[in-house]
Amino acid sequence: MIKHSYSVKVYYKDIDQMGIVYYSRYFEYFEEARTEMLASIGLKYSEVEAQGYRMPVIEAYSEYKKGASFEQEILIESQILDQPKARIQINYEVKLKDGDDLLMKGYTIHAFTNKAGRPVKLPKHIRKIMNAYFK
Amino acid sequence: MIKHSYSVKVYYKDIDQMGIVYYSRYFEYFEEARTEMLASIGLKYSEVEAQGYRMPVIEAYSEYKKGASFEQEILIESQILDQPKARIQINYEVKLKDGDDLLMKGYTIHAFTNKAGRPVKLPKHIRKIMNAYFK
Amino acid sequence: MIKHSYSVKVYYKDIDQMGIVYYSRYFEYFEEARTEMLASIGLKYSEVEAQGYRMPVIEAYSEYKKGASFEQEILIESQILDQPKARIQINYEVKLKDGDDLLMKGYTIHAFTNKAGRPVKLPKHIRKIMNAYFK
Amino acid sequence: MIKHSYSVKVYYKDIDQMGIVYYSRYFEYFEEARTEMLASIGLKYSEVEAQGYRMPVIEAYSEYKKGASFEQEILIESQILDQPKARIQINYEVKLKDGDDLLMKGYTIHAFTNKAGRPVKLPKHIRKIMNAYFK
Repeated sequence: MIKHSYSVKVYYKDIDQMGIVYYSRYFEYFEEARTEMLASIGLKYSEVEAQGYRMPVIEAYSEYKKGASFEQEILIESQILDQPKARIQINYEVKLKDGDDLLMKGYTIHAFTNKAGRPVKLPKHIRKIMNAYFK
Repeated sequence: MIKHSYSVKVYYKDIDQMGIVYYSRYFEYFEEARTEMLASIGLKYSEVEAQGYRMPVIEAYSEYKKGASFEQEILIESQILDQPKARIQINYEVKLKDGDDLLMKGYTIHAFTNKAGRPVKLPKHIRKIMNAYFK
Repeated sequence: MIKHSYSVKVYYKDIDQMGIVYYSRYFEYFEEARTEMLASIGLKYSEVEAQGYRMPVIEAYSEYKKGASFEQEILIESQILDQPKARIQINYEVKLKDGDDLLMKGYTIHAFTNKAGRPVKLPKHIRKIMNAYFK
Repeated sequence: MIKHSYSVKVYYKDIDQMGIVYYSRYFEYFEEARTEMLASIGLKYSEVEAQGYRMPVIEAYSEYKKGASFEQEILIESQILDQPKARIQINYEVKLKDGDDLLMKGYTIHAFTNKAGRPVKLPKHIRKIMNAYFK
């Protein structure tokens, strides 16, 4: 299992007129969180791209429980539960930094493609790095 | 069934460095599409809000097949298949305006709440308007 | 002079917790408006890019008078007053579609560069198209 | 003078198909930077709002020199040079965290209003806090 915790503050730009984070913004937070999770295991995504690979989102899901409001700090806990093969699923749980309540949760599923968007096998060096977490 | 078709053009602001619409942007398109769908049956969402109701997203899902690129026009077909009770599910299919290929599809599920965020029954006048489509 | 009028509706995604369009969103509307203005004189920006040119923003300015709110339709009037040489300045005025009040105004200034970001002279065919408007 | 330095990382969501931060995104970074600058002197903006005040942007300006790309960390240096009276001007300079090159700079000018959007004098407690920096 790969696990990572990422915190982000909610700013005005994220908030709608209900006074809570607009629903699509969480997918931006998810992206920040998974970029940091991958970097934390040595997979800087800008380098993965430079090597000719892409990890486009092919599925995304969210479930909203409670809204986060302006200037609150939230924690995004990312997890890869299953050893990635052709696809990688990343799960996210979002909580307030000060508090245990689940605000929302979701997942994204990513394919591996080359620069042209064709599906490719998980590159060897990426598989090697990831396998270390699934023993 | 309630059905509606909404078209939108892709601009630079929507495109990432893969040259395709960034994944979270589709949830903004979904919002535009459902706002127009509701308006088309006489439910202007700004009026629904003025009457004290909210329809927050409680679930959102997307599945990505093909990317849309800058200056392409896309069509978002929204559908409410099931007569709304406590919740409303809206399905979306996104295609190029010139073409039949499915770019992506998804859904959002909405609760009905009062201004304070408490779940409420579907307001009578909204139920009445919607019921006409489910006979 | 080149002049163009573009209308856009304000959606929830654009609105902050003051109930008005968040200030940076107007720069997205500006982009939509200038893309349409250029297309209207035969300069589809995706084609300009395919020809190897870019028109990056090098300056942007906005002045805010009144807020626009959810589901209001706004009109963005774009103008190129001066014959473009090395740079192009586009002015924008934003009004409600139903009303004469100025909501905000601003401008963007664009350079002409090649794909690598190096400044280049205004390409001949673009100069020709634009010159027709400045006699 | 009030001075503050804020760093932010560039993510995929911020990048356009030129591979650099989309121009309007900097105004979001500016908002993050000024929110943190104000918080650093004891003016948490969510509290300012709770006290019934707003600081809407009435002018915004940006000048773009060099693009920032995905996964680069940038530094936003915010400054209030002049003692705020009816209005507050905040200047921003954006650099790479590792490097001295100026990427872009800009400013925002803010009014002070009540909840209803009417201009008000700078509230006493805010003036007091700020005055300490302009002796």
